[in-house]
Amino acid sequence: MKKVAVVMGSASDLGVVEKCIVELREHGVPFEVHVLSAHRTPDEAVEFAKNAKGNGFGVMICAAGKAAHLGGVFAGNSTLPVIGLPVSSTELDGMDALLSTVQMPPGIPVATVAVNGARNAAILAMEILALQDEGLAEKLIKDRADFRRSVLEKDREISEKYNTEG
Amino acid sequence: MKKVAVVMGSASDLGVVEKCIVELREHGVPFEVHVLSAHRTPDEAVEFAKNAKGNGFGVMICAAGKAAHLGGVFAGNSTLPVIGLPVSSTELDGMDALLSTVQMPPGIPVATVAVNGARNAAILAMEILALQDEGLAEKLIKDRADFRRSVLEKDREISEKYNTEG
Amino acid sequence: MKKVAVVMGSASDLGVVEKCIVELREHGVPFEVHVLSAHRTPDEAVEFAKNAKGNGFGVMICAAGKAAHLGGVFAGNSTLPVIGLPVSSTELDGMDALLSTVQMPPGIPVATVAVNGARNAAILAMEILALQDEGLAEKLIKDRADFRRSVLEKDREISEKYNTEG
Amino acid sequence: MKKVAVVMGSASDLGVVEKCIVELREHGVPFEVHVLSAHRTPDEAVEFAKNAKGNGFGVMICAAGKAAHLGGVFAGNSTLPVIGLPVSSTELDGMDALLSTVQMPPGIPVATVAVNGARNAAILAMEILALQDEGLAEKLIKDRADFRRSVLEKDREISEKYNTEG
Amino acid sequence: MKKVAVVMGSASDLGVVEKCIVELREHGVPFEVHVLSAHRTPDEAVEFAKNAKGNGFGVMICAAGKAAHLGGVFAGNSTLPVIGLPVSSTELDGMDALLSTVQMPPGIPVATVAVNGARNAAILAMEILALQDEGLAEKLIKDRADFRRSVLEKDREISEKYNTEG
Amino acid sequence: MKKVAVVMGSASDLGVVEKCIVELREHGVPFEVHVLSAHRTPDEAVEFAKNAKGNGFGVMICAAGKAAHLGGVFAGNSTLPVIGLPVSSTELDGMDALLSTVQMPPGIPVATVAVNGARNAAILAMEILALQDEGLAEKLIKDRADFRRSVLEKDREISEKYNTEG
Amino acid sequence: MKKVAVVMGSASDLGVVEKCIVELREHGVPFEVHVLSAHRTPDEAVEFAKNAKGNGFGVMICAAGKAAHLGGVFAGNSTLPVIGLPVSSTELDGMDALLSTVQMPPGIPVATVAVNGARNAAILAMEILALQDEGLAEKLIKDRADFRRSVLEKDREISEKYNTEG
Amino acid sequence: MKKVAVVMGSASDLGVVEKCIVELREHGVPFEVHVLSAHRTPDEAVEFAKNAKGNGFGVMICAAGKAAHLGGVFAGNSTLPVIGLPVSSTELDGMDALLSTVQMPPGIPVATVAVNGARNAAILAMEILALQDEGLAEKLIKDRADFRRSVLEKDREISEKYNTEG
Repeated sequence: MKKVAVVMGSASDLGVVEKCIVELREHGVPFEVHVLSAHRTPDEAVEFAKNAKGNGFGVMICAAGKAAHLGGVFAGNSTLPVIGLPVSSTELDGMDALLSTVQMPPGIPVATVAVNGARNAAILAMEILALQDEGLAEKLIKDRADFRRSVLEKDREISEKYNTEG
Repeated sequence: MKKVAVVMGSASDLGVVEKCIVELREHGVPFEVHVLSAHRTPDEAVEFAKNAKGNGFGVMICAAGKAAHLGGVFAGNSTLPVIGLPVSSTELDGMDALLSTVQMPPGIPVATVAVNGARNAAILAMEILALQDEGLAEKLIKDRADFRRSVLEKDREISEKYNTEG
Repeated sequence: MKKVAVVMGSASDLGVVEKCIVELREHGVPFEVHVLSAHRTPDEAVEFAKNAKGNGFGVMICAAGKAAHLGGVFAGNSTLPVIGLPVSSTELDGMDALLSTVQMPPGIPVATVAVNGARNAAILAMEILALQDEGLAEKLIKDRADFRRSVLEKDREISEKYNTEG
Repeated sequence: MKKVAVVMGSASDLGVVEKCIVELREHGVPFEVHVLSAHRTPDEAVEFAKNAKGNGFGVMICAAGKAAHLGGVFAGNSTLPVIGLPVSSTELDGMDALLSTVQMPPGIPVATVAVNGARNAAILAMEILALQDEGLAEKLIKDRADFRRSVLEKDREISEKYNTEG
Repeated sequence: MKKVAVVMGSASDLGVVEKCIVELREHGVPFEVHVLSAHRTPDEAVEFAKNAKGNGFGVMICAAGKAAHLGGVFAGNSTLPVIGLPVSSTELDGMDALLSTVQMPPGIPVATVAVNGARNAAILAMEILALQDEGLAEKLIKDRADFRRSVLEKDREISEKYNTEG
Repeated sequence: MKKVAVVMGSASDLGVVEKCIVELREHGVPFEVHVLSAHRTPDEAVEFAKNAKGNGFGVMICAAGKAAHLGGVFAGNSTLPVIGLPVSSTELDGMDALLSTVQMPPGIPVATVAVNGARNAAILAMEILALQDEGLAEKLIKDRADFRRSVLEKDREISEKYNTEG
Repeated sequence: MKKVAVVMGSASDLGVVEKCIVELREHGVPFEVHVLSAHRTPDEAVEFAKNAKGNGFGVMICAAGKAAHLGGVFAGNSTLPVIGLPVSSTELDGMDALLSTVQMPPGIPVATVAVNGARNAAILAMEILALQDEGLAEKLIKDRADFRRSVLEKDREISEKYNTEG
Repeated sequence: MKKVAVVMGSASDLGVVEKCIVELREHGVPFEVHVLSAHRTPDEAVEFAKNAKGNGFGVMICAAGKAAHLGGVFAGNSTLPVIGLPVSSTELDGMDALLSTVQMPPGIPVATVAVNGARNAAILAMEILALQDEGLAEKLIKDRADFRRSVLEKDREISEKYNTEG
């Protein structure tokens, strides 16, 4: 199976990104985690993106905050699908990272997920890879069943607690 | 090759969505265009999403404006990758459609592109399908070379015009 | 009397929703509390909305955060009045939930209250039901008198404290 | 049947409000249209709200722009359900009217619809009145069938046009 | 001298409003503090505003949060200058209170100060009253000299600390 | 009577400011109109503000767009009440001018009216001057009666038109 | 004198950028104009930035819209001062370009001017170069005198027109 | 070498500004730190700006929050490059300071860095001064190498930790 690249612009994004890693690992999807900055290691970031396909990657997740350019750099240097994960910082509530990631100009898309939506970045990556891997596709379908069960269980619990008194 | 579903929430979105269709057609990617509303045809929307995989679709593009729920409905009823295309309307400048599309809760991602970014929605869909289709992958790489050439040509033209006088 | 459905998209919304439940219970209005997710239990959510009228509900309150689609799903599958309660999350301050809830397209309204305005969701539901229930209407009128008394009491207290020194 | 009050804060809101009137008239719902300003005719606005129930109104729609207080004034002087219709103006894109209308403090809800969502204001009013009027309820259900038919027709038209070429 | 009315929409605004009271007291300006809600005590609020001029008030400060209508109600029922003090709440960061206060429609101004700018509300009130009271005017001019001195002192302190090392 | 200074940061603001001038002239309030820029004529702006009281001004209206500092400069150089009139420009919808004007730091208030709210700036200035001029106060009260009459007339007209058909 | 690089991300930005070129030309400052895209010609953009110092540039102006990364790419690949000029597009009013340009992470600044502030980008570039060129410095000082004269002339014109009638 | 002026509008900004001072000191760049308020010490602020060039300053950094006018005052009274550092406060998340600083009108630029971006303000100042000081230019280039090394080290550390388990 093709690998997922999980790249963060700064080691300080790890707290958010970790949920992404956990999700991939639990599904047995091969991945690599990297810290590469669009601005502090521009050459390495470009190099990584250019070689990603040749190095066996299928999807790349780029997590960055503030004027988040990492996804754009990767998307500009590769035709693999790039998933942008905007990370919130203390000021401006993540709106800066969201707009810097999603508002890409025509020709170079970045598939953006919610601010700090690390888990969804991983799931989106797996939905893409699952197009070529029926085993993974089945795991994702099973996840949905688990989500459903867990919501319905909560529903039972909460509705029992409140409705009997109603 | 798997098909791309291009679904818009209202026929009035066609003006924006058309660039998406053109892009797919030019690359010889099979697609279907539909009008299905999360709120006015909820059953048909759900049905379409549930059967999409079985009906040969690989990626689904959902274009919608205002409280744009179409991408979310599709993502909640399928594990295929769903691309959300927020469409701007007269009020609130597309910010409503953007946030309604991108801020999906954990578990159910929608891969969001820029407000009115129809062309990028198509390119992202093709980047995903190209993981299984080397011919399409090469077309996308060639597109990038064309983009490059066209920018450099503009650069020559504009720098000639202005720099000689400089 | 018709019942009020209080539905939250995630059990984690219970902290906000609880004020809504308290309010309904204190007024002796019959209600049911449920956890149903537009994205994780789409079938159950649709089913609930479609059968709500038949099951004796008169109004439905839908609490959800982020890309809050729950109200829209309910409104798209029922002609009962649906009250949308946007719940704030850590990022973007509830603006995402507010716009996803209130900006519904023509034809399918969601009656939206303030971000985290759980108590107002309950009161709005009761104002609607009170159109058919003079007893409840009188309770609501009495509430207003209580609000008034409580403000005037605070006024006396604070104006005494400060004005004597003035 | 109880009447709907359609009140606008300024005669200049009539362009937006007209869709609301058309919708009510087409459904044979009795209504009255008024211009009453929270700031320029505060006494008349308060008087209207206080007497609304006695005068046979069941729901009140309040349309206003900018620092839109009309819905709040009505809600503070009546326990009938008040629907707030925020109207956009040239500056700030309707965000001012939306927040002024929806962010009501605890105790006094205003059921807010989308910016300029006049048609939805009418439909919400009718959904409320339909709780007591099965005839109206059936009309609303029939509307939904019409919406559905009209979307599916558009779907056929557009998918025929594009898919044959696909 | 005419009195200043300091009115807050809820006793919970007192924490913010207190700085306003301190400022007035320190300058020996007569004032009254009240809790009056545009929505919970609409009659009392209107009554207060209507009688304010007759009761010896010259300026009214209205502090309120969320859909802050208090300033508008006062301004609509009096031609005395009304100062609006938007109070921030947990959600939406005070932007709702700011827009609800400042975006008044033509004819009925509310003189708005910064979100939570309680001290400035008091100073603005005194600047207005000082037009008729040279003693107060001189105090305000002296304040400015004190501000200046205090900044220059800080400047000396900080520039000494850092510049010697520079 | 004290004069009103109407100062705009750029001659291009005249289109907005003109309503302010008309309003003052119609009420027989003495005024002076000036173009003075916080950034292009800082000395003249400061000089004007410093001498305003001595030159017979009672209130100053400062109209400016974008990073609107004019009100702040005037308020920092005078203890007369300064009214800030934020003017919208093509980008950012006037939000920049609004925040630059209203969010003044403690000690130096600017009484801010709505974006492009020129007429309200004039009325606020007159409400302030009317504290010392019973004739002007009566004109303002009469204005309110005129507003009221004009709204009620519109109400009659529109309710006649629509209600007869209702 | 060192040259100014005026780089735009797309030829469509030329309408905005032209004011920048005019300003530089009028001051006799040497410059080069280029079209280079962070995403469509990433190699050329990086190359240009890396060689800029060696090629005689002293300051670089980067104009771009939407998720505007051009300034960041240049700043990440050069230690010359980079001026970011955010260009507005049809959606989101330039806020996306502003935040993508100004919110740079620690270590790699972009000196940002107003949305569409092309003229100011040129003036800032000249203020920087003028530190080494007293002739240019004097031109900039003379500009200020011209600005002043032009404002004062407008002031005379407008105050004459309005004040005589006052 | 020319000095950098580091000016803050209030001593309370020192917490943010300190990173700026540290950065300059570590690079051996001469600087002066001052507290000068656009509104509380307008004369001193203007005086400082007017004399800055004569006093040996080359660049001025102006840090201020809320309606941040300090950069504008400095830029209006000097043709030296002025760097604006917007400081966030409790309300409105720094958006007020950002817009008040960056949206300067044509003619008078302020080079704006990120909200609370104190370190970048210092680096930008040094990039400007380095145009005349090859020694400083080399330090800045060395900084970039250090940034790069530090990111690559983090990359090794994190990729080792996670990838071995992958």
